[in-house]
Parts: sequence; C-alpha cells; structure tokens
Amino acid sequence: MVQAKIPVGILGATGMVGQQYISLLNDHPWFEVRYAAASPRSAGKKYEEAVAGRWQLAKTYAAHVGSIIVEDASNVSRAVEAFKKGGCSFVFSALEMGKDETRALEEEYAAAGIPVISNASAHRWTSDVPVLIAEINSDHTDIIPLQKKARGWDRGFIAVKPNCSIQSYMKPVHALALAGYLPQRIIVSTMQAVSGAGYPGVPSLDMIDNIIPYIGGEEEKTEKEPLKIFGSIDNGVFKNAEFPKISAHCNRVPVVDGHTACVSLEFAGKKPSSMDEIKAIWAAYKGLPQEADFPMAPKQPIIYRSEDNRPQPRKDRDTDKAMAVVVGRLRPCNVFDIRFTALSHNTVRGAAGGGILNAELLKHKGFLN
Amino acid sequence: MVQAKIPVGILGATGMVGQQYISLLNDHPWFEVRYAAASPRSAGKKYEEAVAGRWQLAKTYAAHVGSIIVEDASNVSRAVEAFKKGGCSFVFSALEMGKDETRALEEEYAAAGIPVISNASAHRWTSDVPVLIAEINSDHTDIIPLQKKARGWDRGFIAVKPNCSIQSYMKPVHALALAGYLPQRIIVSTMQAVSGAGYPGVPSLDMIDNIIPYIGGEEEKTEKEPLKIFGSIDNGVFKNAEFPKISAHCNRVPVVDGHTACVSLEFAGKKPSSMDEIKAIWAAYKGLPQEADFPMAPKQPIIYRSEDNRPQPRKDRDTDKAMAVVVGRLRPCNVFDIRFTALSHNTVRGAAGGGILNAELLKHKGFLN
Amino acid sequence: MVQAKIPVGILGATGMVGQQYISLLNDHPWFEVRYAAASPRSAGKKYEEAVAGRWQLAKTYAAHVGSIIVEDASNVSRAVEAFKKGGCSFVFSALEMGKDETRALEEEYAAAGIPVISNASAHRWTSDVPVLIAEINSDHTDIIPLQKKARGWDRGFIAVKPNCSIQSYMKPVHALALAGYLPQRIIVSTMQAVSGAGYPGVPSLDMIDNIIPYIGGEEEKTEKEPLKIFGSIDNGVFKNAEFPKISAHCNRVPVVDGHTACVSLEFAGKKPSSMDEIKAIWAAYKGLPQEADFPMAPKQPIIYRSEDNRPQPRKDRDTDKAMAVVVGRLRPCNVFDIRFTALSHNTVRGAAGGGILNAELLKHKGFLN
Amino acid sequence: MVQAKIPVGILGATGMVGQQYISLLNDHPWFEVRYAAASPRSAGKKYEEAVAGRWQLAKTYAAHVGSIIVEDASNVSRAVEAFKKGGCSFVFSALEMGKDETRALEEEYAAAGIPVISNASAHRWTSDVPVLIAEINSDHTDIIPLQKKARGWDRGFIAVKPNCSIQSYMKPVHALALAGYLPQRIIVSTMQAVSGAGYPGVPSLDMIDNIIPYIGGEEEKTEKEPLKIFGSIDNGVFKNAEFPKISAHCNRVPVVDGHTACVSLEFAGKKPSSMDEIKAIWAAYKGLPQEADFPMAPKQPIIYRSEDNRPQPRKDRDTDKAMAVVVGRLRPCNVFDIRFTALSHNTVRGAAGGGILNAELLKHKGFLN
Repeated sequence: MVQAKIPVGILGATGMVGQQYISLLNDHPWFEVRYAAASPRSAGKKYEEAVAGRWQLAKTYAAHVGSIIVEDASNVSRAVEAFKKGGCSFVFSALEMGKDETRALEEEYAAAGIPVISNASAHRWTSDVPVLIAEINSDHTDIIPLQKKARGWDRGFIAVKPNCSIQSYMKPVHALALAGYLPQRIIVSTMQAVSGAGYPGVPSLDMIDNIIPYIGGEEEKTEKEPLKIFGSIDNGVFKNAEFPKISAHCNRVPVVDGHTACVSLEFAGKKPSSMDEIKAIWAAYKGLPQEADFPMAPKQPIIYRSEDNRPQPRKDRDTDKAMAVVVGRLRPCNVFDIRFTALSHNTVRGAAGGGILNAELLKHKGFLN
Repeated sequence: MVQAKIPVGILGATGMVGQQYISLLNDHPWFEVRYAAASPRSAGKKYEEAVAGRWQLAKTYAAHVGSIIVEDASNVSRAVEAFKKGGCSFVFSALEMGKDETRALEEEYAAAGIPVISNASAHRWTSDVPVLIAEINSDHTDIIPLQKKARGWDRGFIAVKPNCSIQSYMKPVHALALAGYLPQRIIVSTMQAVSGAGYPGVPSLDMIDNIIPYIGGEEEKTEKEPLKIFGSIDNGVFKNAEFPKISAHCNRVPVVDGHTACVSLEFAGKKPSSMDEIKAIWAAYKGLPQEADFPMAPKQPIIYRSEDNRPQPRKDRDTDKAMAVVVGRLRPCNVFDIRFTALSHNTVRGAAGGGILNAELLKHKGFLN
Repeated sequence: MVQAKIPVGILGATGMVGQQYISLLNDHPWFEVRYAAASPRSAGKKYEEAVAGRWQLAKTYAAHVGSIIVEDASNVSRAVEAFKKGGCSFVFSALEMGKDETRALEEEYAAAGIPVISNASAHRWTSDVPVLIAEINSDHTDIIPLQKKARGWDRGFIAVKPNCSIQSYMKPVHALALAGYLPQRIIVSTMQAVSGAGYPGVPSLDMIDNIIPYIGGEEEKTEKEPLKIFGSIDNGVFKNAEFPKISAHCNRVPVVDGHTACVSLEFAGKKPSSMDEIKAIWAAYKGLPQEADFPMAPKQPIIYRSEDNRPQPRKDRDTDKAMAVVVGRLRPCNVFDIRFTALSHNTVRGAAGGGILNAELLKHKGFLN
Repeated sequence: MVQAKIPVGILGATGMVGQQYISLLNDHPWFEVRYAAASPRSAGKKYEEAVAGRWQLAKTYAAHVGSIIVEDASNVSRAVEAFKKGGCSFVFSALEMGKDETRALEEEYAAAGIPVISNASAHRWTSDVPVLIAEINSDHTDIIPLQKKARGWDRGFIAVKPNCSIQSYMKPVHALALAGYLPQRIIVSTMQAVSGAGYPGVPSLDMIDNIIPYIGGEEEKTEKEPLKIFGSIDNGVFKNAEFPKISAHCNRVPVVDGHTACVSLEFAGKKPSSMDEIKAIWAAYKGLPQEADFPMAPKQPIIYRSEDNRPQPRKDRDTDKAMAVVVGRLRPCNVFDIRFTALSHNTVRGAAGGGILNAELLKHKGFLN
C-alpha cells in the first residue's frame, strides 16, 4: 500500500526560496505542499495569482499548488487550523522579513505545535536551535527534545540550515576531519551568484562588466556558522568548536546560481600524505542521508572533477539534483597545506534543497510524525 | 622650443596590447609611434588596413599611425634601417608568439642596437633582465649597464614588466614594506578580466552565467614574480627575495577590463597599529614616477575607497588614466593580520600603460637617448 | 516484448551539436547511439577521452557511449561495416566541415546505404532534399523515393533541417496559414544565442556589455529557407513558395541558449478578426508529431505566454523538453497587421532535438526500417 | 576677457541622469552647476554626501559641486532665491517622480521665472512645449514666445527632449527626408541598455543569460514622439506630422549604455538611387549645432561604419563625446526599401548630453539670457 504523503506548509511561499521549495517538492515521495503562506499582499489569492509575473524558475509548480489559497504568514492560527484538518504537519520557513520578526514568528509556530524547518538566519545563533547540514551533524538533532522541554513545546520545534556561502567547502573539510586531518585555519574567497540576494536583488548595472567585492553580513556568517556546526551539545545548548579559524572574502559575480569558493587550508596536526589520499577520502565520504538513502540526498555528496578548469557554475551546479558539492583544483598551497575550489548550488543545496534534506533527516529520526 | 619627440616602434602592433600602446601614445609628450611591426600576415599593409575589423578599443589611433606601413616583426633589419633614419629609437614589445621565439627575437633587436621594453613574459626569468614596476623597483635599472656589458650590446638592452595579475596588490604591499611592515605570507584570490587573454581569447560560452576557476600559468607568475621585483642585484644578476610567500587562486570572470584581488596578508615582524595607519601609509605612498612627474604616472599610485562595496572594475578601473591602483575593504584578517581588495586596469596599468611608464623611467635615467 | 532499439550513428559526435544529440538520445525509446564518428584527431579514441575537457553540457552522456571508439567520419566504409553488424542503421550528421566537403560526404554515406538526417546547411538547397520541420511539412518526405530513384540509392537518402534562426516564428506563421490567414510580408529582428556559433565561437570580449548586429549568412538563410519549407514537390524537385517575403535583421546577444525573434507580419488577404482568435489558433495547432505522439514531440508546439515580459530565453527555452516554441506579446502592428515575439531553443529544437524529431517522422513513415 | 559662465541648477541631481548632467558639465565652457535639488531625503546634505555610495559613473563630479548643499526640488522658492543671487539662471530637470507631479512642478519653476530644460517625459505631449532634437527641429523653439505669452510667464518656459529610444534612428531618417526621400513606414526593433531604467532599475536576474522583450511605455513613445518632432507649429500649438508610421519592438538587453535599433524603412515617393547616395547624404548631414559649433555638438552627427559587424554598443557608443549616432549595415530591405542598424548613447546623447545641447541651442537663440 502506498503511504500517504505528509502535508507540509511553506512560509514565504511566493518569494524566491519559497518558489524553489514548491518546485522541488513537485514529486517528492514523502512530502506534499498543502499549505502556503506569505505576506498580507498575497493573502487571499490563489497561489497561481500570487506568483503571476513573479515566478522565477524554469520549472513550474504542481497544478494543485496553483489553486491553494495563500494565507497570511503572520496568522499562525490559520496554520493550526490546517494542521487540525490534516493539511499542514510542519512548515518550511522561507520568510523574508526582518530578523526579529522572523525569530518571533517562527517561535510562535513552534509554540502552536507546528515544527519549523527554516532557511532564515534568525535562529542560527539561538543556543538550543540546531544548524543542520545533514551529512555533517545529523546528531545535532539530539537537541530537539531538550529544546522542546526547555520551551514547553509539545510537538513544535525549530531547526535551521546554515548560510548558502559555506555549503561548498564545509563537506570537503568535514570529510578530511573525519579522516583525522583536523582543519586549523582557512582563508576562503567566494564568488557568489546573484540569486542569493533574491529578486529583484542585485541591480544589473552592478553585474554587467563588473563584480561587487562585498555582500553585507556574509563574511561574518561564513566565518562563524561552521563553528556551531562542528560544535557539540553541552548541557542543553550548543558549544562552538574552536577550530577552524576562518577568514572570508565574499564577492558577488554575474552568475545566476552557484556559489564558488577558493579555499586555502591549514591542518592542525597530522596532514594527508598526498593529494590522491584526499581525493580518495572525498570519493568515499558519506553521511546519514546517503546511508539511509533519503530522497533528496545526492548519491555522492562530494564529486571531484579532475579537469584543470572545473568546477564551473553553469556546468556543474546541477550535479545530482543540484545537491552535490563539486570540487576541483586540489593542489598543495604555497602558504598553508592544501588549496582547492568548491561549488554548490546556492538556491537548491544552499537553500530549499538543503531544507528538504533536513526535513527528511528529521522525519527519519521521528521528529515529524 | 619644443623638444622633438622620440620615435618609437611597436612590435606586435596589431594585437590587443599593441593596439592599447598605440592608443595610449596618441598624445604622449615624449614618445611618438613611427614604426609598427607585426606578423607576416599584416606586413606590407597600412596599419589602418591591418587592423580593419580587428580594432578592439573605443578610442581610436592617431591619423598618422593609420598610414604607417606595417613591417614584419621578425625582420629586425627593417627596424635598424628605421632607426638609422631617425624613425625608431626603441621598441615596445607586445609580441604574441611562443616564449622561445619571443625571447630570441627580443634579444636580436637588443643586439642590433634597439632597446626593447617588453610586455611579454619571455624574459621575466632571464637573470640579468629587470622586471620593473616603476614605483617599486626603479633602482633595478642599475642592471642594464651590466646586462649590456655581459651581452656585448652597445645601445640595445631588454627591460620587461611583470604579469598583470600582480599589479593590483604589489604597490599596497610595497608601501607597507617601505614603512617597515614586512610581508611574510600572502594568500590571494584574483578575479581577472577577459581582456587579459587577448582576442578572441575566452569564449563567450565560458563567460555567460559562469566563471572559470583557472588561468593557465597565472598562479605561478603571481607567486614568483614579486620575489624578483622585491629582490636585489647581486654580482650582475638578480637574486630573489625570500618573502613574501604567496599562494594564489586565479579566476576568470565576465569583466572586460580590470583585475581584482582579494588579499590576506601576514606581516613578518612589526605590525601596523591600526587600519587608519595603513590608509595613511597608502595615501602618502609615492615613487620616482610621482617625484619626477612622469607623463603616464598616476598622481597618487594607491587610491583608497572607503565605501563598503569598492573597488569595482567598471567604476574604478579608469581612475587616473587607468594607472592608479584602487583599494578598498581594508579590515583585520581573522587568520592573518590584514585583508583588503585591490583593483588594477590590466591592459593599461598591467600592460601597455605600465610599459610606457617603464619607458619614461628608462628615459629619465638616460637609457633611451 | 520490448522492441529492440534502432542503432544510430552520430557524425561530428564530439562537436557541440554532436554532444547535444548524444545527450538527448540518452533515454530515447526508439534510438540508441552505437556509432560515433568525428575528425581524424578524435578517431581511435574512446568517446569519453575524445570529449574530455570539451564536454559543454550540464547533462552528461550515457556510460555505454563513453566507451564507444570514435571513428573517422570521412571513412564511410567503417559505418557500412557497423551497419552490417547491426550497429548503425542511419546517421545524424552534425558535421562541422566546409560546405562542399559536407555535401560530398553526406552523399557518400547515402550512396553507401546509410540514411543521413542532417543538421548541416550543405544540402538545404539541393533540389531533391527535403528541409523538414516535422509539424509543418511532414509531407515533404514524399520526395525521398524520388531522390533515391534519381540518385540510384537503394536504402540511403538525405533529409535535413532548416537553420535555427527560423524555428521560433515558422510554426506560429504556419498555424495562421493553415487557418486561412496567409502571410504576405514579414519583417523580423532576431536576438540569437551564442551557442549557435559553437565552441569556442563568439569571443567573450564581444559579448560583455555588448551585442553584435551581424551573423554571417544568417539573414539570407532566415529569408530563403521558409520558402522551400512552404513550397511543394513539382516533378521530383522542390518548388519554392513565393510568399512570405521576409526581411531579417540578425543579432548576436549575450544569451547561452534560445533565439528570440520580434516579428511584424502582414497577411495576404483575409485577416484574423482578433488577437484572441490568433491565440486560439496557436493553442489548437498540432502536426503529425503530436497526432502520432512522437517521443521527442512537444505536446503543444506553440505555447502562448500572456505576461507582458515573456518569452524570455532563460526562463522559457526549456519548455516541454526545449522542443516547444514560446510566443508572447501578440498585438496589432502599427504598420503591418500583427506583431509578436517568439522564442525557440536553438541547440535543441533548432538543432539536435529537431533532427531527432525528423528521424522519428522518417521512422514513422517507414524510411528507417 | 573671459565671459562669466551661466549658473545652472539640476533638478533630480542625485539620480542617474542628474549625475550624468553633473559629470558632463564639469568643464563646460558656457554653463556651470551652482544649484542642485533632489528629493527631501537628500535635501540639506552636501552633494558629495548625498551621492556617497550611489555615484554610478566612472568619471567623477567637480570638487565645487561636491560641496553644494542639496535643496528640496519641490521647494521652488529656493531656486528663485538662488536665481536672485545669481546662482541659478535656469534648470535641467532630471526629475524621477510621477508624471503628474513632474508636470506640475516643472510648470511651477517656469511660472516662477526659471526656464526648465527637461529630460522627463511629463511635458512631451503638452501642446505648446517643444520636443527638441537640436539637429532636427531647432526651429521648434519658435513656440517659446507663444508658450510664455499663453501661460503668462515672463522669463520661464519649458522645453523637453524626446525619449532615448528614438535618438539613434531619427537623425538618419531626417537626413534622408531633408534630401527629399520622405519616410512613409518604419518597422524598428530596439535592443536597449539597462542604464535607461535608472538605478537599481533592471534586476540582474533578468539580465544574465537573458533578455526582456518588453519595456513599459517605450514602444508608444518610440512610435509617437517622432511625429511631433517632424510636426509644425500651427496657431500656437504643435501639429503632428502624419508620417512616418512607426511600429516598434522594444527589448532590454545586457548592455550598460547604448541603445541599438534595427530599422526597416519604406519611402513615400522618390527613393535614393543607391546605398552610396544614402551614405553620402548621411556624411554631409549637419544641423544648427554643427553650423554654430555648439560645445556639446558632435562634429558629424551621423557616423557610418562600413564594417559588417558595427555599430556595437561598447565600442561605438562613446564616439565624439558620446553625442554622435553611429550607423552601419545599410542594405536594401527585402520588404521595404532600405534597412540599417543605428546606435546612440542613451544616457549622454539620449539624456543629459541631449539636454545640454538643447540648452546650448536655447542660449544661442537668446532664450537663456
């Protein structure tokens, strides 16, 4: 017998990440979009009307989603009603409000019994909220029972994903750490796609015959979030790792999708014996998503390309449902130990796809029943 | 009385850098293009015919240059004849042949009594050839008498300029070194313009919605050439400096002109007390080109922009005749001491303009009489 | 029982259109790539070696294709051998040689008993070779028996597809003609993607902050080929239609894939009563590929988008396997009768996908058994 | 004795066109910027503070402009005060408000005695306001005394310039009309630069690997404004010409500056005998700006480039101070009589530069004393 799909809601359903969620969930085997909420401007309209002229993706949305009546995201009671009728088991949050409002609203959903799996940055530094990259720190979901208990929430909770800029190089670094080669210092320079800024986002006058050597707040996120992800749970809250120390230069370049990172890495102690050993470690790297065969999981999280001139955003970003990290140019670093270039699709792996993978992890662990 | 201009020749006059030379020399107060040489394909044609449909610049060439009959660059005797008639005192080499051919041909010109001021990479590692950045190592011209003597050349000699990729950050680093803050290690990531690869150069299929994380040979040049420039003359040849150790990631991005570098820098010993001190050092930085007021010299070699999002290639590359380096985003580095972003116009400051400035330096020092 | 697939060969298999064929045939229900031929440079190598570092597409090739040993395309006897062993029933020609060589070589294949379905322009004006757009002139295959007879060919024949620049507006015009609204005059301006020029193709220096108002030979093809497609068979050869008279302005723009055409159209006699009538005609338009449900056929050949700002290349070119034409902006013309904008994917619908659809048509009609 | 410069004001001084005005007037021999007004947000700040981080041009503003205190543009009395003190003889209007507000505010300035030379579209269809292209209809200034009289204005008046999209092909058409070859019908397709939409303007997500086949309101302006410019004064108001009938397709393409137009043209009666005759007519074309040698006037208003692939925006837009129209690809039209491609710099010739040329015309005629 076919298992009924779990009904999910999307907060911020009409924005770019919301659209990406809806598109990626078109044929998902476990989840089905049944609830969509956005700003008051869209509330009351059919989804297809709310996104008319604003749909940004080449792939369209499922027909049944087009006729969903969009709710006001700030009206949590509507989601609770939907939940009671079996129409919204949990929500993906792709809210694009201010940080404080987002933080409060996500808590309101959780308190009302609706688990929130969020792309927003609001709760990344909340001490009992896990920042999940499913291959790396799937054990960080252990904090959820503690979070619920501390907050007095019965069914709801909050789990988030990190910033898109770190997706490309965190897994290669993690793979090496797992193999005993601990990262001590990293200097990274990113070339980030414009879709990361949403729509309308970056003006075209800034991206024709030009690059912008600055993205507000991005370097701080790139430097700090890995320390929480590599950290541990201590007495009900997260304790950051001390290493690696990261210094980031974040740049905006005229690319639609796909963030590229040039990484120089120094190990803390033991060093790999050769570049080939590192490539072998990356090729063998797997996490829970691969072991448990989650629908959204890339078969191989790290793909190494041996050509000199890869990875390239347009040619490599869609590798394995746009969920794999593509790495190339591994070579010794003149200053640190090694250097390489890594690429990740920022609105799939780095946003909605990563969120769905987190939801799959949470369902696998029994948090979304 | 008006001093007669020195007649100069351009080798490789029809290529992109050759065009840039000819355009920049349109109104030069000291030099006048009177001789143009290129491949046999162009030889015998008027310059205007040779570049018809191939001229790449918005600015055009002087009328008198259009009617120069292009010579075969490999026919050195033609340049000697022109020299004897007062039509070619020295040549700028913008040859685009193979390295070995270029090296041999440039030596042939020098041996025939025609000084060669070159943009080509062929002689950058020749032990008695100076690699000049006029603000930094103008004293390296001291090797020229030794070079002439060792080679048995009476009037001719060879002087070259370094690769365009290092132009943006060498002067900021030099300014700090002069102030006593010695660079020990640098990790640099570049985003380089397509004009650096000439025409046709980089295919558009590689530069629409894409970047290329690799430029053949560029990282090696970026890492090694500074050591010669910061080096010293020892027993008639150059001895490289040991520091800074540099590790480079060189990327090609969809920008017409202007190479951007993201630099993280560690000092060897003493460190500047503040970011403001560094900005003051940069603002005060001057070299011989400024002191002697060379025509092609930027008034201030390093311009610091305090806006968060500068320098930007399209907006900043043309600063002060496209000869100034524009720097921004100076801030402490999480891993090394400081980090910043620097920009230089690769086909002006990094190629023909830099070559002209070198010629001005050499004339100032009496080598081009 | 599953029908065995027909084994096909690709001539010019390593070029851009050849790659597109191989990618599109990955999962084709009727055809399977079993033979690959290219220039002598690639001959003797495994396909995966021959395209290493040159593969341009995001989608890769089937594993079994990677290990095919590439043949020399000019060696027709190898294809005949493959045919005899059941390994090459017909070939798709994506040859990139000169016109005369292509013409001769395609005839050699046909004479040797290997049907040639070609993308090359060499035979478009051969009087007994059909230029097929499967929805428009599927009856033009009637010339094939005459072609075979006249040439003395038993099994082989040649059929070609037209230039990519006309794909976008020919079906909308044909639909109206079928409905009785005959086109008399057309003024069309195209904005064409760089992939149309192959790789390396258009230099990036021409496509950053720029357009090129000229594509060699393209306007002539755009103006003449429709007349053959709308023509008829007369005494064993094609007789061109007299109308529509077309005047084309063909431009190259910085778009990877997708040719856009701005069309102003004057009818010969009867005119549609309203824009809505035209939209209804387009929505209802179907040809043999739709009626017979060919695998590569778009379900609906013409998709009309009602938003003001569509069609757009990046968002619309992939509609229905990149085989549908997407039309928008239908409105009365101030000078002629109507005007609209149409878009077609140039390397799929306009090249390899159109070739495959032609092969499906020819198989359906019994020419490829 | 040096004549004192006329002090001018800029309304909308901080926007893109306002910046262009200020940059172009840096060294103007007749006019000097002494007054700057913008939205209340900027009012009270120094100009350099008001544009910090928002200055879009490579060329910067004059030092004395940086320290002008920006006024609130809606406060007309401030301009009157400045006028009385000799600080604002007339204003250039680059207002970016709504049409009704702009219309009213420009009238308020004129009524207060401050002549308004406007780039805004608000008054283009006001029956007694001239729409000037200085080479074409300099005699339309004859309406100004009538306008002043009818409105009861003593010193103030309003004169405007047309939309940037028509600048490229109006002069070539006018030159032919002057020679007796009257235009009857034109079908034109434009490829327009993003700077035409201001800043932030067109999102980069719309301009990477994409074009937009629509610009709101642009086709209407392109079709109608030429009729007023070719019209005549009749009883104190303008009477439109009946011809040429124009049908326009306006597209946005990823180009920073420079609008390109592909034009097909049908003559009303007599036709030129050859393409060479047309080129000779264009080469000889001059208007009052050339005859009276206005500072901003291009020496030759129409430059014909004989290369197949010109004009190109990046290479040709800056021709003769970015004030010349560059034309190429003249050839017979298959459907009408002739076709050609024309290019004009939209923010210089098509905006601020055109406005300055109009001011020079008006000064020449004695309206700005």
